[in-house]
Amino acid sequence: MKNVLGREIPEYINGYGSVNPFEGAFSNMGIKEKKAVKVTTVTPFDNKVLESIEEAIEKIGLKDGMTISFHHHLRNGDYVLNMVLEVIHKKGIKDLTIAASSIFPVHAPMVELIKNGTITGIYANYMSGPVAEAVSRGYLKNCAVMQTHGGRPRAIESGDLHIDAAFIAAPTADTYGNINGVTGKSACGALGYAVSDAEYADKVVAITDNLVQYPACPIEISQIYVDYVVKVDSIGNPAGIVSGTTKITKDPVGLKIAKMAAEVMKASGIVKNGLSFQTGAGGTALAVAAELKEIMKKEGVVGSFAAGGTTGYIVEMLEEGLFNSLLDVQCFDLKAVESYRENPKHQAMSASMYANPHNKGAVVNNLDVMILGATEIDLDFNVNVTTGSDGKIMGGSGGHSDTAAGSKLAIVVTNLVKARLPIIKENVTTVTTPGESIDVLVTERGIAVNPKRTDLIEKLKETNLPVMTIKELKDLAEKITGKPNNIKLSEDIVAVVEYRDGTVIDVVRKVID
Amino acid sequence: MKNVLGREIPEYINGYGSVNPFEGAFSNMGIKEKKAVKVTTVTPFDNKVLESIEEAIEKIGLKDGMTISFHHHLRNGDYVLNMVLEVIHKKGIKDLTIAASSIFPVHAPMVELIKNGTITGIYANYMSGPVAEAVSRGYLKNCAVMQTHGGRPRAIESGDLHIDAAFIAAPTADTYGNINGVTGKSACGALGYAVSDAEYADKVVAITDNLVQYPACPIEISQIYVDYVVKVDSIGNPAGIVSGTTKITKDPVGLKIAKMAAEVMKASGIVKNGLSFQTGAGGTALAVAAELKEIMKKEGVVGSFAAGGTTGYIVEMLEEGLFNSLLDVQCFDLKAVESYRENPKHQAMSASMYANPHNKGAVVNNLDVMILGATEIDLDFNVNVTTGSDGKIMGGSGGHSDTAAGSKLAIVVTNLVKARLPIIKENVTTVTTPGESIDVLVTERGIAVNPKRTDLIEKLKETNLPVMTIKELKDLAEKITGKPNNIKLSEDIVAVVEYRDGTVIDVVRKVID
Repeated sequence: MKNVLGREIPEYINGYGSVNPFEGAFSNMGIKEKKAVKVTTVTPFDNKVLESIEEAIEKIGLKDGMTISFHHHLRNGDYVLNMVLEVIHKKGIKDLTIAASSIFPVHAPMVELIKNGTITGIYANYMSGPVAEAVSRGYLKNCAVMQTHGGRPRAIESGDLHIDAAFIAAPTADTYGNINGVTGKSACGALGYAVSDAEYADKVVAITDNLVQYPACPIEISQIYVDYVVKVDSIGNPAGIVSGTTKITKDPVGLKIAKMAAEVMKASGIVKNGLSFQTGAGGTALAVAAELKEIMKKEGVVGSFAAGGTTGYIVEMLEEGLFNSLLDVQCFDLKAVESYRENPKHQAMSASMYANPHNKGAVVNNLDVMILGATEIDLDFNVNVTTGSDGKIMGGSGGHSDTAAGSKLAIVVTNLVKARLPIIKENVTTVTTPGESIDVLVTERGIAVNPKRTDLIEKLKETNLPVMTIKELKDLAEKITGKPNNIKLSEDIVAVVEYRDGTVIDVVRKVID
Repeated sequence: MKNVLGREIPEYINGYGSVNPFEGAFSNMGIKEKKAVKVTTVTPFDNKVLESIEEAIEKIGLKDGMTISFHHHLRNGDYVLNMVLEVIHKKGIKDLTIAASSIFPVHAPMVELIKNGTITGIYANYMSGPVAEAVSRGYLKNCAVMQTHGGRPRAIESGDLHIDAAFIAAPTADTYGNINGVTGKSACGALGYAVSDAEYADKVVAITDNLVQYPACPIEISQIYVDYVVKVDSIGNPAGIVSGTTKITKDPVGLKIAKMAAEVMKASGIVKNGLSFQTGAGGTALAVAAELKEIMKKEGVVGSFAAGGTTGYIVEMLEEGLFNSLLDVQCFDLKAVESYRENPKHQAMSASMYANPHNKGAVVNNLDVMILGATEIDLDFNVNVTTGSDGKIMGGSGGHSDTAAGSKLAIVVTNLVKARLPIIKENVTTVTTPGESIDVLVTERGIAVNPKRTDLIEKLKETNLPVMTIKELKDLAEKITGKPNNIKLSEDIVAVVEYRDGTVIDVVRKVID
């Protein structure tokens, strides 16, 4: 069958099940159920602190075929996922599904466990490095499921993704399982991606390298969700957890794109008191923030909030009074961690509050402007950030589809040509985010507005910005690069790309060497 | 049938249902289920702000026979319960059950609605004033259900108490339903008793007199739980919401009892680094805190946390470094509100985290010392704080049973004789808290230790404290007052007293004039 975007998807996928096809960004709404949760009660006479990860695995009764979850706040510095899987492998437990909010190059040891059948399923919102490569080559027994930052808590809370045990990397935990990310040698800041796991998993284990006296204030994840606490020497490599600082690009093309994107915002009329804003941690995305900052200062605009994964640059905008508050699901750098710890205006949100489409209104619903990237974009503005032009998985939605759907003005900023390949395609390799959620594409050579935004097209006509159709932009790129060849992929499906509401927006097929 | 405490309770009670008899403080534990919750999703195009309470009642589809809930953070200053019920009465909706965490004299208008059939059921953890009187006289169609501060969230989360709609008095709310209690003219501080209602009710309406720009940081109750927001002129009378200051008793008998209670604590060996402590907001309870403070200062003891409803006096102990943190479910005075707003070591907890026996370990489980009151206590140390000596409801457990069960040393402090009546009875009128949870009774004339605490009896023998059996204390009191007459009550049951785990510990029978 074909879904509403014309993507060819089977009605049933082995190792995944029946497919609910994507039918539009807000088609699957209404009354939804959060599932019942089983809790093993704890009396005043019980002790939650265990000696080792092995003891925890025994206590929770981990068995073949179960699903275990991890969060990615320690990013490419995470030791916890590998530590837990090493113990599991030694115990000979097989056929596990790993529900990790994201998977990074540091998780390379998973590849061997995929090959030997310890791991047979993967859920992730983002994956890069050797595991992504292994999935792309079809080594995983079941197809992987790529979700979004809002789709993951939706799936966990609804029961679509049942977690038997969640292992929570805890920069600080007390003896009763209260957790925070703001203190300890592995401090990473807000722990938003771990919240639904803690609330809905059958069993929850906190793994910490900073076990403190009860209570571990500030409490980000409460004792009422945690069954056991294990102390280890180190949960991660600080160098990989948070970068020292996140920096604005110095590339003149990126700076040009950023300036144009800020001019689009200004021309749209959205830059006024109460503005809400989110951007990524990449160099160009931060450059857009820098341009926006100048406009806000010049015009005396005070925004309501900035959201997202947070960087020092956005923290500076808060501290300069350009925003009243920050809503933060994860901290990308040390300045963000410090601000989150010290500044009450810098507040945590769970991934569910951030982006889950099936709660009573996520934060993304209140975003005015979202700055997004793209690996590929097609003539209908459908965006791919899941696979590279070689067809291999190299990312995933993260919050891309969520923020695009929620924000009033979703702007994709990208170079028109990357690595000698045009970004605009007749058909993208994989659809991550539907074009209906994208309002504008800004490249160094020109700006294309989604035709449904006739209001914005009118407003931009009054500026000197180089507005054209996306087809014209595509032709412009192909004059430079020539028409790219289509890549050849196997028919075998290696990953299902779930839209935030749990419908299937696309599939990823196995690469052919 | 008789439950384990020998209280006569029918197996089935009309308007309540089958009775699960109380079998011991930790008999009903193990694997428990938190129920599934239905959520009506909210898109970026939806608006949550409604014009009036009437519009909210229409939107949520309130019907005859439903259960609606309220929290008591505005205490005897609350306007919201009466406002909502007035609209409901005008609309002619009947047969409602009111699940209010507590009911105060200000809620007197409920009596008329009880008489005319608008209200036919009541759940509360505490009730005093005209509603308590009306229930005691048997005016309510179904018997009332008296719960505890931990039993209420347990019942809500398990589905034992299904809430169709929760009305949350919000000192501050934004247009998307984020709520806090720290700002606004009706600021009351922590909102712990409203959390389970927000999380588990079918529909949730925030009623505020301080509607602010999104987002209302700090967010205590998240937008993801709130369906609608209604702005009204005033949610309460500040004079009734928080007292200016809570004060230590000046009564020499109260001071003497406090001194003895502190000496019991000291002799028990529990006053050492890491001590955790909770006391009430009454004058004698605060006097115990004052005595403890002197001991801690003299001995250089630093406690881990103080918990509970919080007063300025406990805040001072935090600020003087005597405790590392406060865990707070509600603020009793302005100083506590201010501290909660400004001091990151003063942290909120939900009622579920505070005291729910069926989660993965409540805060009460970590209490070392709890100071409690009593209206009556029997020879087995069973305590009544639900009914007066006339048999009328004049209170309820609140956190009494929860903290008694959780704490290592539960001390009841009370005058031996009150209003010419002895406190120690052969049989208490109503059992609120089982004697197994009470360790010591301290009166001005003597101290009685629960016989099961042989360790404590040994330790107190080494002091000059007037330790005796509870029978000896009872005889001492009766020498002063004479043996009191038993009160006569009807056979009709007007209230069921649920222990925190949902079993029935006692019933309250109708008073005879």
